[in-house]
Amino acid sequence: MSTASRLEKLRASFEGLGIDCLLVYQPHNRRYLSGFKPADTQIDESSGALLIGGERAVLATDARYQLQAKAQAKGFEVFIYPYGLYRSIGELAASLGCRRLGYEPHAMSCALRDKLAAELPAGVEMVPLKDAVERLRAVKDEGEVRAIRDSLRMSEKALGMVRSRLKLGLREIDVAWDIERLIREQGAEAVAFAPIAASGEHAAEPHAEPTNRALDKADPLILDLGARLAGYCSDMTRTFCMGRPSDRFKEIYTLVRQAQLKAIAACRAGMKAAELDAVARDFFTERGVAEHFAHSLGHGVGLATHERPSVSPRSEDTLEPGMVITIEPGLYLPGWGGVRLENMVVVRENGCDMLSQNEHFYEW
Amino acid sequence: MSTASRLEKLRASFEGLGIDCLLVYQPHNRRYLSGFKPADTQIDESSGALLIGGERAVLATDARYQLQAKAQAKGFEVFIYPYGLYRSIGELAASLGCRRLGYEPHAMSCALRDKLAAELPAGVEMVPLKDAVERLRAVKDEGEVRAIRDSLRMSEKALGMVRSRLKLGLREIDVAWDIERLIREQGAEAVAFAPIAASGEHAAEPHAEPTNRALDKADPLILDLGARLAGYCSDMTRTFCMGRPSDRFKEIYTLVRQAQLKAIAACRAGMKAAELDAVARDFFTERGVAEHFAHSLGHGVGLATHERPSVSPRSEDTLEPGMVITIEPGLYLPGWGGVRLENMVVVRENGCDMLSQNEHFYEW
Repeated sequence: MSTASRLEKLRASFEGLGIDCLLVYQPHNRRYLSGFKPADTQIDESSGALLIGGERAVLATDARYQLQAKAQAKGFEVFIYPYGLYRSIGELAASLGCRRLGYEPHAMSCALRDKLAAELPAGVEMVPLKDAVERLRAVKDEGEVRAIRDSLRMSEKALGMVRSRLKLGLREIDVAWDIERLIREQGAEAVAFAPIAASGEHAAEPHAEPTNRALDKADPLILDLGARLAGYCSDMTRTFCMGRPSDRFKEIYTLVRQAQLKAIAACRAGMKAAELDAVARDFFTERGVAEHFAHSLGHGVGLATHERPSVSPRSEDTLEPGMVITIEPGLYLPGWGGVRLENMVVVRENGCDMLSQNEHFYEW
Repeated sequence: MSTASRLEKLRASFEGLGIDCLLVYQPHNRRYLSGFKPADTQIDESSGALLIGGERAVLATDARYQLQAKAQAKGFEVFIYPYGLYRSIGELAASLGCRRLGYEPHAMSCALRDKLAAELPAGVEMVPLKDAVERLRAVKDEGEVRAIRDSLRMSEKALGMVRSRLKLGLREIDVAWDIERLIREQGAEAVAFAPIAASGEHAAEPHAEPTNRALDKADPLILDLGARLAGYCSDMTRTFCMGRPSDRFKEIYTLVRQAQLKAIAACRAGMKAAELDAVARDFFTERGVAEHFAHSLGHGVGLATHERPSVSPRSEDTLEPGMVITIEPGLYLPGWGGVRLENMVVVRENGCDMLSQNEHFYEW
């Protein structure tokens, strides 16, 4: 889908949202609608914002990004602000005739919002909108699905190479760096997130950061990784056993894999994301291990590694055709370790398409 | 300096700031005060916050970070919130007896601020504070200076290796990746920022992203890089000429180097950061090239690559002993390219100490 048709969809939602203009500050949203690529890494260092009215679409940025803006944001007028967005917002809002200006309260610091509010012409109201662009982004077109699949293939290839080199004595940080290097050397823009390599009792922490811990016999080893390619992220997790798998490893692993397969079999458009989470969670409850499943079943993936929909017990999202989500049950036993298995799927009318290659699973 | 003495300094400022409690949400500030390391990469995905009262210091986080929190934030009570910080803020604020709760408006989304405000007990007021922790961070103790120097040595070593391998035909992205790989393989936690390799006319963009452009004869090539080691960043820039330097290259280069040396010679505690910027800028004005100096002279470096003080014409900061700053004049000529040279110094009472090794400069 072109950025022009995305803009058209967005504008069609303005009336229902009660706005006549939208200020898009979140970097992924900005890229999704305009093609402008910079990824801001600090909330207080921004490379610009889109101002989208009923007719006009402006990319406001500073002089450092002028060339990039013109080259990347084809359908947009480029406005260069000399002293920061807030000093020019009054002029911009007036020239677009804004009366009710939507903005993203979840992506903008309160300091900036307050400065913008102070500079807007009298009579212009700022309207907080949590997900005006995020809900468009949640449903992928086929070009986006291809981009995500390409990114996932790169992650899978890196994992295969890393797996073949695993040996006792390697440290978690060595493995994590090997993953990152292999992803980058295949031509990814970046890793989608810092790879996780969590071994032994560290594998009991779902968000473990790689440490100097050396891989030891019989350790469970969780590898969670993803590439970013042409802007699109992938996300996958496999768990290995460094030696001969113990009965406990086999038991936990089999439960996690069964939960994953049940969720994949159940996934289809029209169901609540919370219902999908419950498929895995209820299975763990039946088996008496639900207390060890300490996170959500999954999440959307696209320009961001974590985006709508949320696949959690508290999610209010409904699955729609074209949503790309992870299905990643896990069980974590403090002092021992954990197992997590993560695949990606595209939601379809009557089920889901597997995006991940079903590799690197144990079967006993 | 221990985190305990940092807390003591911070608490000593509470009365002047008009608060009795501070909510610290910004990840670098959180780490500086507590030792808790996670770096949040999205404004809406937080690994927690500190709540610092007159007596008690609490690290509030979720179950995923429980083990890390206890291991890293030694002087802190760890509070695990089951449903997000905002759902527990009322309980926390009440238990610490907060009446006036400082928070960081520049680092917190307005969505979160509004949710926190809604959950606070009646009578607790939220007080926006732009830089309560940032101004402490601006002045480094000797342990921090050593950490920054170690990080800088790693960057310098990577640059030396990359320089020895430069050849015509390499692409900017190859060089940038080589830098990143060499920094990581020396044991850095990460690069401080994505390395910049900007060649030919791309070198005219101060924030150029590396492209597929291949290095060509007589190209100026700007390499801007930094490591992050034990949390601390380094930042350095050198400019090379891929072939025999033209007269223009020599002229521009010499002007930039002279401006840098003048600023280094002038730098000392007690001067306004804006005055230091003016030393380089006025020199460029005398030589008729000031319009090509499109950015600030420098910035503080520490846990963040860019932090207080700002060394720019509009800065209101005063240089203090122990501040670590970059001195990085540059001249950028659209269509031709640019030259930037960046060293790091520690501000001292009567001058400054050079942190960078004075390598990789041309002299004619």
